[in-house]
Amino acid sequence: MSSLFVRTLRDDPADAEVPSHRWLVRAGYIRRVAPGIYSWLPLGLKVLHKVETIVREEMDAIGAQEVQFPALLPREPYEATGRWAEYGENLFRLKDRRGADLLLGPTHEEMFTLMVKDIYSSYKDLPLSLYQVQNKYRDEARPRAGILRGREFVMKDSYSFDVDDAGLEASYQKHREAYIRIFDRLGFDYVIVQAMAGAMGGSKSEEFLAVAPNGEDTFVRSPGGYAANVEAVRIAAPEPQPIEGAPAAHVEPSPGADTIETLVAWLNRDHARSDREWTGADTLKNVVFKLAHPDGTVGVLAIGLPGDRAVDEKRLEAAVEPAVVEPFTEEDFAANPLLQKGYIGPEVLGEKNASKVRYLVDPRVVDGTRWVTGANRHEHHVIDLVCGRDFTPDGVIDVAEVREGDPAPDGSGPMSLARGIEMGHIFQLGRKYADSLGLKVLDQNGKLVTVTMGSYGIGVSRAVAAVAEGTSDEKGLSWPRSLAPYDVEVMATGKGAEIFDFAEKLATELSEAGLDVLYDDRKASPGVKFADSEILGMPTTVVVGRDLANGLVELRDRASGEKRTVASEDVLAEVLKEVRG
Amino acid sequence: MSSLFVRTLRDDPADAEVPSHRWLVRAGYIRRVAPGIYSWLPLGLKVLHKVETIVREEMDAIGAQEVQFPALLPREPYEATGRWAEYGENLFRLKDRRGADLLLGPTHEEMFTLMVKDIYSSYKDLPLSLYQVQNKYRDEARPRAGILRGREFVMKDSYSFDVDDAGLEASYQKHREAYIRIFDRLGFDYVIVQAMAGAMGGSKSEEFLAVAPNGEDTFVRSPGGYAANVEAVRIAAPEPQPIEGAPAAHVEPSPGADTIETLVAWLNRDHARSDREWTGADTLKNVVFKLAHPDGTVGVLAIGLPGDRAVDEKRLEAAVEPAVVEPFTEEDFAANPLLQKGYIGPEVLGEKNASKVRYLVDPRVVDGTRWVTGANRHEHHVIDLVCGRDFTPDGVIDVAEVREGDPAPDGSGPMSLARGIEMGHIFQLGRKYADSLGLKVLDQNGKLVTVTMGSYGIGVSRAVAAVAEGTSDEKGLSWPRSLAPYDVEVMATGKGAEIFDFAEKLATELSEAGLDVLYDDRKASPGVKFADSEILGMPTTVVVGRDLANGLVELRDRASGEKRTVASEDVLAEVLKEVRG
Repeated sequence: MSSLFVRTLRDDPADAEVPSHRWLVRAGYIRRVAPGIYSWLPLGLKVLHKVETIVREEMDAIGAQEVQFPALLPREPYEATGRWAEYGENLFRLKDRRGADLLLGPTHEEMFTLMVKDIYSSYKDLPLSLYQVQNKYRDEARPRAGILRGREFVMKDSYSFDVDDAGLEASYQKHREAYIRIFDRLGFDYVIVQAMAGAMGGSKSEEFLAVAPNGEDTFVRSPGGYAANVEAVRIAAPEPQPIEGAPAAHVEPSPGADTIETLVAWLNRDHARSDREWTGADTLKNVVFKLAHPDGTVGVLAIGLPGDRAVDEKRLEAAVEPAVVEPFTEEDFAANPLLQKGYIGPEVLGEKNASKVRYLVDPRVVDGTRWVTGANRHEHHVIDLVCGRDFTPDGVIDVAEVREGDPAPDGSGPMSLARGIEMGHIFQLGRKYADSLGLKVLDQNGKLVTVTMGSYGIGVSRAVAAVAEGTSDEKGLSWPRSLAPYDVEVMATGKGAEIFDFAEKLATELSEAGLDVLYDDRKASPGVKFADSEILGMPTTVVVGRDLANGLVELRDRASGEKRTVASEDVLAEVLKEVRG
Repeated sequence: MSSLFVRTLRDDPADAEVPSHRWLVRAGYIRRVAPGIYSWLPLGLKVLHKVETIVREEMDAIGAQEVQFPALLPREPYEATGRWAEYGENLFRLKDRRGADLLLGPTHEEMFTLMVKDIYSSYKDLPLSLYQVQNKYRDEARPRAGILRGREFVMKDSYSFDVDDAGLEASYQKHREAYIRIFDRLGFDYVIVQAMAGAMGGSKSEEFLAVAPNGEDTFVRSPGGYAANVEAVRIAAPEPQPIEGAPAAHVEPSPGADTIETLVAWLNRDHARSDREWTGADTLKNVVFKLAHPDGTVGVLAIGLPGDRAVDEKRLEAAVEPAVVEPFTEEDFAANPLLQKGYIGPEVLGEKNASKVRYLVDPRVVDGTRWVTGANRHEHHVIDLVCGRDFTPDGVIDVAEVREGDPAPDGSGPMSLARGIEMGHIFQLGRKYADSLGLKVLDQNGKLVTVTMGSYGIGVSRAVAAVAEGTSDEKGLSWPRSLAPYDVEVMATGKGAEIFDFAEKLATELSEAGLDVLYDDRKASPGVKFADSEILGMPTTVVVGRDLANGLVELRDRASGEKRTVASEDVLAEVLKEVRG
């Protein structure tokens, strides 16, 4: 410990929002170099390497072969698939001395596709799974939470190549099982949820989320087993209702009804219905956004949804990706005089209507449903506007907030919401990249067929933070045995030479027995040593102190806080038993 | 082998200049992605990882602690030391989405200095050695020879921190010894030579060069033990000679004497000397260059050297770094009418003379030496121009070519020249970076002192190529046991099921005994298998073929080409003995 390159800090870093960030910095595991860019100190790097080893072992076990691509990549392959533009500001782009465009790889679908195209040509070569453990780069808009969301980070990405859909499904399942083994070994509390494919393209996709109150992702679960990232929830649309017999729409002046709340109050006061009270769910709220597309164009999107629900920003972002959502400002309203702020109604919306503004509605807005909504005039609303009779949206968009208790789309019961950290993501990419880049092989009949691909990622450096997030407490880090930088810490407290002699001898013997041992040999006070020990978080600590004179030492378990006294002559065997289980 | 992600190629890559590049590509170890940017295929990556492991083991053994810095770095620390500009076009620079300047780290002196400053504060914390194994980036003007000189490459860089010069010397020696162990284990033929510190700054510096006819570096050796990179050779200057009694300088018309050869002929014809013939070494050639400095200014430099020697471009580049040498063009002559092309003489040169051009001379041009040189008039030369009497240079520059047989500067005999690949470089940086970045610690007396540093690098990915360069032959790669991707290849040739059964069983048994085994299970012709085996280059191959019926198999040694027949029942033991020595 006296020569280990580490110093614990008394104070939280100013930008620390989450426990993993706070403790990894305070314990001297990582250091910030720039926003979202961190260095690994010796203790942190040991943990990172342990995660890498677990990932490699399980990838090798399913027959995936390790390769390594550059992080610095040429523009052309990413141009061919459209991602040079689609990645927008998230991509680090640069030019070399000859003016050639380069990028720092955010993910390597293109490169893997081209490498397999370069080397393989027959169905006999497949299935194939390749992986790499590598630094990835994304110029995040909001790098945060230390290494949980950095701009340079270590990922394991792998890719499967199959000649047909059944092969892809099998490769996908093999990866899924390997991921389960990896996350079990890392000691996560995790869930597997349905996910959006996002910028990757493709179809079937699941995420492995570490359950964490500070997680950036929200997911839903139902008692019947439904589980999905909230971005991927596709609510069950109600059945269309008969249009015949619905009353005619009528516009009414609605002074002061400029919120959903005042609108509902006005309805119940001036237009009370006989069967029940009006609620926010009877109103249709039309919200306008701008969408900035990768090609530089900016469009307008209006979303109609029941007034009792807000648009969920993250669900919206995921739904319109690679376009980026921008707010619709006062200037934008001024430039679009048909859009009457606060009173926008469906009559003017839609690509075929006056405003030409694209109009998508919540899945609940089905044919035959009746709505109270804006009448496109200041302080006027229209009542009994019927979808499919009085207006026809351009399509559906499922981006309303999902609420605790909403029914799961598969009928498996009410959904509960929780938060998690995305640790792994598995996709069935299909033929998107193989098509764009021309990866074909000869099949059994000598015919050229396009290869179908899967893409599988694990946030390796993020896993270090996610484990810390799940295991740290108010005193510091607390590592599971699979990831601890050292198996055991031996601490000498007190002043007698015999205490230090015994502790050093024990540390040597444990080391010779094959354990990684951290020996706190410092001439520091017991208080300093105990505090550091708890911040650094080795799973087991042997405290050699005054009681050694009575033949006793103390064994401490960091996770449970349990302390027990053992005979000094038994301590070697006791520690070995604890560490090796 | 049938599932290994590899294909051997029949043809050399178009840009392959050296054997290692040719064979690493043809054997499917690496693939080019962009100029100077390569991917590692499974076999290549295994070799790379073995090099990394050897490097880590030996660095750990001297107590160096592993850390990991980002490759993507902020501008500020490099601005503080001047290297943001000094690196010129060799640095990959980029901006993030907020417009902040970033770079891809070419080497990490600044970052290590700042990290130690962040964490340590006392002499008691030192000595300290830290290292990392990491991707480095340099935008080489001429990326070449595959991974020998790439733009993204893996380096081990380490840094030592000491409180005084004696400490630095001790840390330097420890690294030097670790490097000797590393290069011994890698199996190089290498030399340790004196080196220039270059852009790193600092003083004492040595290089580890792999001896290779295709190496980019030239080094010299003498029988008495002198060894230096040719860039670092500092020739022994002769003693000054008495000026008194030297004849007066006289200008003579020299029609047609426009080369050193014709000048010498003219001298011997029209101005014959009584004691001996004139030679090129009696003439003083003045050569003009432009120097582009990192700050954007461009200066002119004139170099005076004996006419029988050329300026060595690489020695010149190294001497003027970080300035970049540019040719002095016809336009430049036109802009400097005092410089009479072909007849430039010392009278106009020098910062205090008419042209104001900085004038540096070869160390052989000492006070009292007499020269025939240009008279600054077309077709005129001056004879008996005496240094220190008739002209005074601004200083000395040691950039003349070094020739086979030149005396070693330390008097240890005539030098011979050879070529090598720079594999390691160790520097005593001193206090340059600690000064620039304010790394100080309290010494024994409670006084703040600036830390002194060493910097030590190994080209990890380059080592893969350098070993291939030294061991490959006309048939392909040939790995030393320490680096081979597999310890042994087992090859089944022929058609009988019993041949494949035996080979597979042997492969399994060798694998269970702890060896890495490549089993060529393909249904390919023996010719294809033998050729692939020789290209891939495992040190030992077991050939199981027709003779198995007689209880015999063949053992082949790739390096020596030796083949021997062994009893099939003994082959397991024989292979284990060969592999384990």
